[in-house]
Amino acid sequence: MKVIRHPDEMRAWSYERRAEGKSVGLVPTMGAFHGGHISLMEACAERDAVSVVSIFVNPAQFAPHEDFDSYPRTFESDCAAAKALGMDAVYAPPASALYAENYATYVEVERLQEGLCGKTRPHFFRGVATVVVKLFNAVVPDRAYFGEKDGQQAAIIKRMTRDLDFGIDIVTLPTVRDADGMAASSRNAYLDAEGRELGLALSRALFGARELMVQGECDARRVVRMVKEGLADVEVDYVALVDADELNPLMRVEGNVLLAAAVTVGDTRLIDNIRYEVGES
Amino acid sequence: MKVIRHPDEMRAWSYERRAEGKSVGLVPTMGAFHGGHISLMEACAERDAVSVVSIFVNPAQFAPHEDFDSYPRTFESDCAAAKALGMDAVYAPPASALYAENYATYVEVERLQEGLCGKTRPHFFRGVATVVVKLFNAVVPDRAYFGEKDGQQAAIIKRMTRDLDFGIDIVTLPTVRDADGMAASSRNAYLDAEGRELGLALSRALFGARELMVQGECDARRVVRMVKEGLADVEVDYVALVDADELNPLMRVEGNVLLAAAVTVGDTRLIDNIRYEVGES
Repeated sequence: MKVIRHPDEMRAWSYERRAEGKSVGLVPTMGAFHGGHISLMEACAERDAVSVVSIFVNPAQFAPHEDFDSYPRTFESDCAAAKALGMDAVYAPPASALYAENYATYVEVERLQEGLCGKTRPHFFRGVATVVVKLFNAVVPDRAYFGEKDGQQAAIIKRMTRDLDFGIDIVTLPTVRDADGMAASSRNAYLDAEGRELGLALSRALFGARELMVQGECDARRVVRMVKEGLADVEVDYVALVDADELNPLMRVEGNVLLAAAVTVGDTRLIDNIRYEVGES
Repeated sequence: MKVIRHPDEMRAWSYERRAEGKSVGLVPTMGAFHGGHISLMEACAERDAVSVVSIFVNPAQFAPHEDFDSYPRTFESDCAAAKALGMDAVYAPPASALYAENYATYVEVERLQEGLCGKTRPHFFRGVATVVVKLFNAVVPDRAYFGEKDGQQAAIIKRMTRDLDFGIDIVTLPTVRDADGMAASSRNAYLDAEGRELGLALSRALFGARELMVQGECDARRVVRMVKEGLADVEVDYVALVDADELNPLMRVEGNVLLAAAVTVGDTRLIDNIRYEVGES
């Protein structure tokens, strides 16, 4: 397995593989692998002739007061896991290779970047969209794999990929959960036992609300209220029921919906979501 | 010569050429070819194994009150010229193929997009940067060719290409001028004989100021004032002396400078610029 540190080297390597007629898959990550990353890499290694995982903790998507410095970095064990899963290359550039002096260019996905997590993290999604464009331009993949746990991000990346004519197939895979229901996240490592117990309220509340919708509840405010009641013991950033494509708030539960929430437990911000299509059981 | 109407078809065609080991060159245009476009296409056809010219009047870079509807469209004669110059493909998508329903994604090049033409055309350069990203993603070129007449645009495209890790070589070529000194522009077709005579003040004033700098004038305000005096009979949008890379206004003439101006003659907006490196004669 090759470790590549510069976008030019990455692109040259990838074009060589493409010239051999091989499809290239990309799993973009910030490292600190958990079950979600594993499921994405497994899908990529199975489907694409050549599979690349990028590991880059992207400074452009952290605000100054956020956890860029303390974000878990486990590069050696991540590489071992990637190799064991059959990945062909790890793309792990230093920040200086991606953000040169006088860096000036940002990609904005209007409307979709503004609600949900975008309200309290106003520059987050432009940082995400920008770095994904940069990863796409270095890796030149046929397909890229994202987890549904980052539901707003998945919607934004899909729209950006379509809008900018990338011709890349965006594959999203279901959220991987621990046995207790908590969505796998690198930030779960921040939680102690008490924090974990408190944080579990998030997935419990979302799945409780899903059951309410399955039983026929159509009033979005009632669904949101039920989630909020389940989050009484943690600090709630938002709970929102939106349409799954445009991320507009809904008054009624109809079509494909995304029920998403963010909470803070101690200093740890946790997000989770469920998708629900009316009529599903 | 092939005419291609859709980004997916364009990308597939281009990847086939690349797989044959051929370099791909792109000349992005809005059509209505003049001597400037010709010089770009000649350079592309000579240097790249496969040469593509795009013709697309990009709605995202026009404000509602601007000349999108009346912008000259001469597709048949443009294609004949491209063919005669040895271009291999014309990429001419309809607007509906590039801006689908719920289009949301824009590329911003901060700082560089704000001054000069960006002041009176606040959404112009994000429209330009966005469509160039889209053209790059459809044509997947090794090299792309731009004219120096659009000096701010050239600086923005170079920065954007570097920042987003495109790995595309941006070639800029000198402004092509008519015998009387006027910079070639598709919008010159809007001018009657009187308008043309008035518009000539623009290139005359810039070259007069260049002579002043050659003679050793170091005070940027004096250079700008001299240009403005030469533009007494037309409506001046701006005259600015900036550094050629970051486009910051300069107090003193030093290093590589861009002296740029925009005027309006009747309803026609004209731009022109010269580059000057201190010590040149």
